[in-house]
Amino acid sequence: MAKQKTSFMDTIVSLSKRRGFVFQASEIYGGLGNTYDYGPLGVELKRRVKDAWWRRTVSQRLDVVGLDSAILQHPRVWEVSGHVGGFTDPMVDCKTCKGRFRADKLEDARCPEKPSKVPGQCHGELTEPRSFNLMFKTNVGPVESASSVAYLRPETAQGIFLNFLNVMNSARMKPPFGIAQIGKSFRNEITPGNFVFRMREFEQAEMEFFVPPAENDTWYDYWRSERSSWYTDFGIRPEKLRVREHEGSELAHYSTATCDIEYEYPFGWGELEGVACRTDFDLKRHSEASGTELAYFDPQTKEHYMPYVIEPAGGIDRMALTFLVDAYEEEELEKDTRVVLHFHPEIAPITAAVFPLVKKDGMPEKAREIEAELRRAGFTTFYDEKAAIGRRYRRQDEVGTPYCITVDGDTLAEDVVTVRERDSMQQERVPVSEAAAWMRNANENWKR
Amino acid sequence: MAKQKTSFMDTIVSLSKRRGFVFQASEIYGGLGNTYDYGPLGVELKRRVKDAWWRRTVSQRLDVVGLDSAILQHPRVWEVSGHVGGFTDPMVDCKTCKGRFRADKLEDARCPEKPSKVPGQCHGELTEPRSFNLMFKTNVGPVESASSVAYLRPETAQGIFLNFLNVMNSARMKPPFGIAQIGKSFRNEITPGNFVFRMREFEQAEMEFFVPPAENDTWYDYWRSERSSWYTDFGIRPEKLRVREHEGSELAHYSTATCDIEYEYPFGWGELEGVACRTDFDLKRHSEASGTELAYFDPQTKEHYMPYVIEPAGGIDRMALTFLVDAYEEEELEKDTRVVLHFHPEIAPITAAVFPLVKKDGMPEKAREIEAELRRAGFTTFYDEKAAIGRRYRRQDEVGTPYCITVDGDTLAEDVVTVRERDSMQQERVPVSEAAAWMRNANENWKR
Repeated sequence: MAKQKTSFMDTIVSLSKRRGFVFQASEIYGGLGNTYDYGPLGVELKRRVKDAWWRRTVSQRLDVVGLDSAILQHPRVWEVSGHVGGFTDPMVDCKTCKGRFRADKLEDARCPEKPSKVPGQCHGELTEPRSFNLMFKTNVGPVESASSVAYLRPETAQGIFLNFLNVMNSARMKPPFGIAQIGKSFRNEITPGNFVFRMREFEQAEMEFFVPPAENDTWYDYWRSERSSWYTDFGIRPEKLRVREHEGSELAHYSTATCDIEYEYPFGWGELEGVACRTDFDLKRHSEASGTELAYFDPQTKEHYMPYVIEPAGGIDRMALTFLVDAYEEEELEKDTRVVLHFHPEIAPITAAVFPLVKKDGMPEKAREIEAELRRAGFTTFYDEKAAIGRRYRRQDEVGTPYCITVDGDTLAEDVVTVRERDSMQQERVPVSEAAAWMRNANENWKR
Repeated sequence: MAKQKTSFMDTIVSLSKRRGFVFQASEIYGGLGNTYDYGPLGVELKRRVKDAWWRRTVSQRLDVVGLDSAILQHPRVWEVSGHVGGFTDPMVDCKTCKGRFRADKLEDARCPEKPSKVPGQCHGELTEPRSFNLMFKTNVGPVESASSVAYLRPETAQGIFLNFLNVMNSARMKPPFGIAQIGKSFRNEITPGNFVFRMREFEQAEMEFFVPPAENDTWYDYWRSERSSWYTDFGIRPEKLRVREHEGSELAHYSTATCDIEYEYPFGWGELEGVACRTDFDLKRHSEASGTELAYFDPQTKEHYMPYVIEPAGGIDRMALTFLVDAYEEEELEKDTRVVLHFHPEIAPITAAVFPLVKKDGMPEKAREIEAELRRAGFTTFYDEKAAIGRRYRRQDEVGTPYCITVDGDTLAEDVVTVRERDSMQQERVPVSEAAAWMRNANENWKR
């Protein structure tokens, strides 16, 4: 069972590289541990995931606005947020081999001198556990000194709290309202792993939703449900998702409730997104530390109050991985097996591939014409004239392209193409002029 | 003249803060030098700029594919690219005040002990100039040591060269073809400035276009012209743009030609984008250093060759600033002055604002209904029922919203709204059911 699970991830990693979803970063230099680059299809997948999130969370709502705050912020921010003091892992050093290991994961660690041994079993005496901060540190300006230290943000959320007043005033918002952002964060994880699931550099999609304290529970329920629906609406199988409420002991001291939206990955259940009640903890801390009053003045009650915060926080890389893993199927057909990615049409990197049936008789020219027309109409397209038509279908199945459009003799005679749908593999004759509308309609009616 | 120019930038900075385009980062903690956050309108402006670039450079072409490589790469990358050795500014230290200054910009520097004096005039002896590397340094993993050093990328371009083979093979491309990416880069500039024009953390839009060496000049001409047109197609005034060819002494030693697309900012002409011939310099260096052959095998000639590279490289922040500055007008009307941003409709953060004429008689309900319908149809909308209608128009002019739609008594009786166009200020009665089509048509026919 364990072997099979590993193999499935290997299959995904291998498909990702072969078809241009994800490459190992700096591969030609032997790679940089657990850092990845997104290839041509991966970047389109990520773009669609981000767009789908932004559209639903920001553009389609009047009560949420966007933000794009800097990765580098004033170091004081991370002291106040608690990250300088508390964002740590316990580490031990081996006095013999000089290796450093996570004290709470010693059984997974390997001694660099005797790689078959775990530290502590290889004759080295271990130091007492010490805290190791997970923030990446750098220096801003020409002098490296304590006063020039800056951190790469470990979360995008703080940038939102810092701008709470600026956003509320400039966009004329009032609670309940949200501020959303997508951006890179960095955590110097000791044990990153599972492909793009846990990386040191990763992209977050976070939203802080500010509410009157009395509405906290209602909005927590709302966002937990809304964020779960988002995944199933874009085709993730519901049986692979679960919502796990944190128990009292797991909760941050300021949180009244938190849940993880988990997905069953090939390596087990893992956190895909968290929805947390952060109360007024962050606004209060920043208010006190900065001397800037971050309360909302309610003109109706004539009172200032500190809003409570509900935070849905997901990782774009995990979302992309989830869409990829969830879409994957090795489907047994009558004569062979096909690999197919059942992406939701709005998530699929390519929407329509256009083929000439054969590479002659004017078919390539006509196919290129149709491809260009669809591209101008806003579809992401791909043109392919190489190999047998069945092989071309398989190549598109493997990257999840919902529609393949084939130009044949009839196209030249009657302006009719064959549209082949990915999941059902059914083919339909469609007039060229109706192909775009046909695909839009099929998109809307798509079901996993 | 100089004063007036400064004032214009102050106006832009102030508008940016007031209306939520750009805020100073960490403002409540006194800010972090020359670091900025994009507010609700700024993030939408940037999204549109990026989308317009990506659509034109990637989605609408079959010969360019996208990439999204990591900010952290193997440190060897930056040795081979020449950044560890050569990406430096000459700095001097003052032995008295311990300040550090750019040796080539001493006249702009101020002594921290005697701020009215420039270093060298304040009795401090200066050291000989030393090279100061502009890359931000950090450490990956739990141990801070020479072997754990990593750099924040100073350009996205190298990530493209590293993936040249992976992309070419997985996407089945052959020269001439391009690989494009948008992403953050970091440069520890000693003298950042001019608002978001020069920041330490910034976003790049770069594309490496790989060509057979014989086609170098043709493609250089093509991209120089294509990139200039992109700006004017999206409304930038041609008289504010110029292309400046680098002279021999300005060229990097490996470059056969480079030009800057410059814009006339309030603070003078500045580089908006560069188009550079990088020859085979980067691929060759990485090929040699990594031992991975990065040549293209041409199946027709049966020969391997190293493609030449044309690189259009722009900054998203500069583009956003340019669109903002260029769009700005204080227009003298008969009775007053209005501030208006003449954004291209595809660049404008909000496309349509919907107003009830008055806050009664069912108009707010009807206006909200129309707003929601337009939003579902994909328009970015804004709803406003506060203040007199003229004031609401002005508020939208100031953020560049092309269309204001007003619901009045006739709307309730005859389903007709008043659509007011931003630039001409002309109003037209349009049936509700045709408003979306009316705006789409106006978008297509928009001219500055």
